[in-house]
Amino acid sequence: MQGTQKTVDVRKQVLEENSRRAEEIRARFARQGTLVLNLISSPGSGKTTLLEATVAALRERYRIAAIEGDIATERDAERLRAMRIPAHQILTGGACHLDARQVHDALERMELAPVDLLFIENVGNLICPTSYDLGEDFKVALLSVVEGHDKPFKYPGIFARAQVTAITKADLLPHTDFRMDEVHEQVKTLRPEGRIVVTSVRGQPGIGEWLALVEDALIQKRRAGQR
Amino acid sequence: MQGTQKTVDVRKQVLEENSRRAEEIRARFARQGTLVLNLISSPGSGKTTLLEATVAALRERYRIAAIEGDIATERDAERLRAMRIPAHQILTGGACHLDARQVHDALERMELAPVDLLFIENVGNLICPTSYDLGEDFKVALLSVVEGHDKPFKYPGIFARAQVTAITKADLLPHTDFRMDEVHEQVKTLRPEGRIVVTSVRGQPGIGEWLALVEDALIQKRRAGQR
Repeated sequence: MQGTQKTVDVRKQVLEENSRRAEEIRARFARQGTLVLNLISSPGSGKTTLLEATVAALRERYRIAAIEGDIATERDAERLRAMRIPAHQILTGGACHLDARQVHDALERMELAPVDLLFIENVGNLICPTSYDLGEDFKVALLSVVEGHDKPFKYPGIFARAQVTAITKADLLPHTDFRMDEVHEQVKTLRPEGRIVVTSVRGQPGIGEWLALVEDALIQKRRAGQR
Repeated sequence: MQGTQKTVDVRKQVLEENSRRAEEIRARFARQGTLVLNLISSPGSGKTTLLEATVAALRERYRIAAIEGDIATERDAERLRAMRIPAHQILTGGACHLDARQVHDALERMELAPVDLLFIENVGNLICPTSYDLGEDFKVALLSVVEGHDKPFKYPGIFARAQVTAITKADLLPHTDFRMDEVHEQVKTLRPEGRIVVTSVRGQPGIGEWLALVEDALIQKRRAGQR
């Protein structure tokens, strides 16, 4: 039991230090009027693919940058650099989430000029990233229709904390037994004011609702900053 | 840095204690001739669905039991109890993996009579379960074709440790750009002697190769035990 108590103390200390750094990041991007989103999902839910489609749709009108978190490989950052935006890869070694210190260090290394939108793609994991504030405006939980409709109640931490749940790969719906109404019910139970957007980068319904949500959030942040 | 050192020490202590308990579990099931598999994957890769199909195919000939790990909900254990096998749900609260103590306690609570096959379904996570020995004969990593072929190199820890990689949801292959040859290459790099089986519970190729692998492993374990 002594080991457990020590683990709890160390964890509390780590989270407190993380929160301090996250607030510094949040203050910086409040000054710059940058909307910061922290994307969290299982491996393979389509975070990078949604980002590619978002960048393709918005890069003419907004300055966009991305920070990619992975255990190994530069693959995701390379995919976004191929879209001609600044993208930095954080390799966590074995850690199952990003923390605010890593984001802070990545921003320093990128020497990032002010942007309108900063997307932080967390390590593929529905659990560990939940407790780590990265200074974002909001967390986005992604859930692909192929993962099954039981996931919000099985991973309640993230779906309770994410202001937005993006259902991805909706074009595969006809090939699954995914029940959208059950996901809505679970998400609304865990976070009554949470938003749900249904997306597909390969067919209907597309990503229009997602893009509108991102643009609205940016506009609202800027208005709030001018008050 | 002091916090980091403390974290490392505590983690080492936790893993050492885990290994001791895992060896006790392994010794018990060596005596009983039970084959124990630890199934690890992202959320929604189809662990429970593969288990349901496995139980349906093998329960006439073998005694089977399951231990289910989840953060929340009894849903998976209920699915397996509906197949009329002993199934115990471990709820980790927030922890992103099972440990050997939890498996030990679950076995006590189940008052499990000797079985031929024990399946331990880990918490949906490709990262945290990697380091925790549960006393299994081998780890099985599941990867659904919808998650993308870049996953083994992005999550090398688990694909290096899993003796078997099961590619799931192969019936959805025509709707994805999943490249099977790239997955084979990555898995073979990470674990040259690793086995890969391609499965689908809804169409071709079915789960025959997987069932044969499980039965062979059980027979081999029993032969080795008689020597």
